[in-house]
Formats: sequence, structure tokens, C-alpha cells
Amino acid sequence: MRSDIPAQLRSALLWLVFMETVRRDSNRTAMAELTHIIDSEVVLAFSTYATIVVLKMMLMSPMTAYFRFTRKCFANMEDTGMAKTPEDKKRMLRVDPDVERVRRCHQNDLENIIPFIVIGLLYTLTGPDLSTALLHFRVFVGSRLFHTVAYILPLPQPSRGLAWMVGMGATFSMAYRVLSTTHL
Amino acid sequence: MRSDIPAQLRSALLWLVFMETVRRDSNRTAMAELTHIIDSEVVLAFSTYATIVVLKMMLMSPMTAYFRFTRKCFANMEDTGMAKTPEDKKRMLRVDPDVERVRRCHQNDLENIIPFIVIGLLYTLTGPDLSTALLHFRVFVGSRLFHTVAYILPLPQPSRGLAWMVGMGATFSMAYRVLSTTHL
Amino acid sequence: MRSDIPAQLRSALLWLVFMETVRRDSNRTAMAELTHIIDSEVVLAFSTYATIVVLKMMLMSPMTAYFRFTRKCFANMEDTGMAKTPEDKKRMLRVDPDVERVRRCHQNDLENIIPFIVIGLLYTLTGPDLSTALLHFRVFVGSRLFHTVAYILPLPQPSRGLAWMVGMGATFSMAYRVLSTTHL
Repeated sequence: MRSDIPAQLRSALLWLVFMETVRRDSNRTAMAELTHIIDSEVVLAFSTYATIVVLKMMLMSPMTAYFRFTRKCFANMEDTGMAKTPEDKKRMLRVDPDVERVRRCHQNDLENIIPFIVIGLLYTLTGPDLSTALLHFRVFVGSRLFHTVAYILPLPQPSRGLAWMVGMGATFSMAYRVLSTTHL
Repeated sequence: MRSDIPAQLRSALLWLVFMETVRRDSNRTAMAELTHIIDSEVVLAFSTYATIVVLKMMLMSPMTAYFRFTRKCFANMEDTGMAKTPEDKKRMLRVDPDVERVRRCHQNDLENIIPFIVIGLLYTLTGPDLSTALLHFRVFVGSRLFHTVAYILPLPQPSRGLAWMVGMGATFSMAYRVLSTTHL
Repeated sequence: MRSDIPAQLRSALLWLVFMETVRRDSNRTAMAELTHIIDSEVVLAFSTYATIVVLKMMLMSPMTAYFRFTRKCFANMEDTGMAKTPEDKKRMLRVDPDVERVRRCHQNDLENIIPFIVIGLLYTLTGPDLSTALLHFRVFVGSRLFHTVAYILPLPQPSRGLAWMVGMGATFSMAYRVLSTTHL
């Protein structure tokens, strides 16, 4: 029969080992939870596709500037500094069909890509399957890239109309999931 | 007086039970923390109202398309495929007051609903009371639904102006809370 | 030699103390993780700067209304209630260069501030240094405030063009970090 004191020492050592185990275990679980929600594959995929489609939208601004300079067509008097005579300046304050086309494409991007970003972010928080989420993101981004090409060239209709509808459909599909997994 | 060994076995069993208790308890607490922040009632409410008001905004696009087709008024030459003669095509490239009204309403949505989404999301992260948050979300969404009706019918002023001001007020009130709970 | 029972009592007391320690410790760690991600300085800074720049954008709406009332220039027939005769009403439905200037500035805000919000939020989730993040946020917000002043006064070019480019640059720099820390 051993003495009490070594038994208590052994208990204390076991406690220490156990304490470490529980501590590590609970941390790992808490981080797994966080990883599941914040750093999941779906969030990473959304980040990437959202950034791509927003960059595409931002590139419409330099494209408008490019068309304004090559067509010499401006909206503000102070932008016509390259003109030499006052008559040239006035002539540059006009509406050009190519510039208006790029601006309509940009406006259509604002009207479609921003709803995708908002609803896509909320959709990501509902925890969808990675494959389903990727399908939605890729169909939307693909349809908007094709929409821009079809608008700027322009391609004959209904190519632009179909691209617009496919993008709307992907966003509506995500909105349906958001509304069916939340409550008022 | 019992032997030491059964006492240590009992201790070991107690450890196992205790380990399970602590493990479950710490997980539950960690998840409760997450639930408190990510899946709270306020976030769910924001998700739902944000999706509703963004869907409302998106529906302005098909409404514009509907008015363009019924009024036979388009902005792009390639959209006038339904015309038979080149003169008809040119005549369809015009500005229609009804189409412009829907487009102004859509533009006003972009200018008001997007700030609501951004500031509403940051407001949600400040942890407001559910009832206060619901009041803000419902007042905003209601004011924008009424704004659209008042713009499209149209209702006599100041109905549209008041709806616009009430929506702005709800967003400003949330922005005040965001700025007073954060720091530069 | 002491009896077994007091030893077990002492063990039980130690367990209780230990249980409390582990529990508190695991909570603290889980909350630290959350704090690291949700309530970090970078998220707080983003909240503040995003709210400031969105409020600036929202203020373009009342400014448009102010110019519309002082210039007596409206877009909708129902807004011309201040006119006494039908001829006055018709005369108020016109396009005013000052109103159009404010509206172009508002449109430019929509086209630049919304991408900043989306990409800035995703950038915040990549866990950047506080000083680097603050640099991006402050450069962007400063450039947009200067852009508005340069557009409304107006200041001679290239002041407005440079402000626009600096803002775009800050957003592109954040987008680069988002794309290089995520994967398709």
C-alpha cells in the first residue's frame, strides 16, 4: 500500500496534463467554429468572385475616360483644357453615342452587381454547399463579363438580354435561399 | 478504510466525467458567443429586410424593360429588332417620360438603399436592441416601398418627398450609433 | 497517515477551482479569437471611415434638392407645386447645369465609393496591419472629400482627375491584397 502523498502528486500531474488537453481542445473547437463561419471555402470563394466582378465594374470608369478623350466629348467646361479656342471648348461639351454606351453599361453594372454583392454576402452566411455556391458565383460573374462584351462591341440581341437575365436569375436564386433560411 | 487504488479509479472516472462537462461547457460558451454575434436575431432581421429592399430595387430593372417594350422606346440601336423599317428603328431611339420616371426611381433607390445596406450592416455589428433595430429596418423598408408607389403612380407631393426624408432619417439614425460606438 | 475521505474532499475542491479556471480560460480564449476577428482595430477603423464616406455620399441627395429648389429646376411635373401658372410649371421642367454638376458628382461617388466599401470590407477580413489599413482608408476618404470640393466649386483640372485616380489607386491596392490572400 502506497502513501497518500505520491498519489496526490500523481493526481496533480494528471490534472496538469488534463488541463492542457482541455484547454487545447476547447481552443481548437472554438477556432474550428470560427473557421467554419469566417474562413470557410465559401467565404473565400465569395471574396474572390466579388472582388473580380467589382474590379470589372470599376474598369468602366477608365474606359469612360478613354472614350471621352479619344472622342473629345466632355461634360464639364473645366475638362476641355486641351481645346485652344473657346469655340473648340464649347464643341467638346457634347453627348457622344460611344461614351453614352459605356455609361449605360456602367449603370447596368451598378444596378446588377451591387445586389449580387449584398445578397451573395448574406447567402454566404447561410452556409451553402461549396459546389452550389461556386455555381452561383461563377454563373453570375461569367454572365456579367459576357454582358459587358455584348454591350460594348455590340453583339446582336438577344445576347445582351440573355446575359442580363442569367445574372438576375443567379441573384434571385441566392435571395430565395436567404429568405427561406431567415425569419422576420 | 478502503484501498488507494479504487479511490484513484473513482478519481479517474470523475476526471472523465468532468472532462466531458468542461469540454461541452466551453464549446457551448464559445458557440453562444458566436451565436450572439453571427446568428443573432438582429443579424437575421437585417438579412431579411436587406434582401427584401434589394429585391425591390432589382425589380426596377424588369419594370424599365417592360416600359421600354410597351412604349417602344430604346437606348441602343441593336435593341430595336422588332421594327421593320430603318425609319421605325430610328423612331424607337427616343426618350420616353414614363421610362425616364422609372429610371429616376431606380436611381433614387441606388442612392438611398445602398447607404442603408452599408450602414445597416455596420449598425448590426454594434449590437443594438432587437426592438430598436427592427424599428429602424421596418421604417426604412416601409418608406422605400411607399416611395416607389408614390414615384411610379405618381402620388401628389409631398408624399414622395416625405417617404425619401423618412428613409434618410432611419439611415442617419443608424449612422449616428455606428459613429458613437467606434473610434478613429 | 490521513484518511482517504479528506483527501478526496481536497481533490474535489481542487477540481472545482480547476474547473472554474479552465472554463474562464477557454471563454477568454474564444472571446480573444472573436475579438481578434470581429472587434479588431481594423474593423473599427473600417466601420468609421466607411460610415463617414457613405454619409458624404448621402449628403449629395439634399444638395441636389437644394440646387433644384434654388434654381427652380425639376424633373417631375408633380414637383412643380410652387409654380402658379401652367406655363411656370412647364418652365420648371428643365435641365440646369448646376443641378447636373451635383448629379454627376453623386454618380461618380456611387461608382467609386461602393467598390471601396465592398473591397474594403473583404480587405479588412484578410487581417492587414492597422497602420497599413488606416493609410488606405484615410487616403481614400481624403481623396473623395477633395474630389467633391473640386467638382462642386469647381477647381481647375487636373485637381478633380488626380483625386479620382488616388481614390481608385487605394481601392486597387486593397483588391490586390484580397486576391493574393484568397483562392478560386
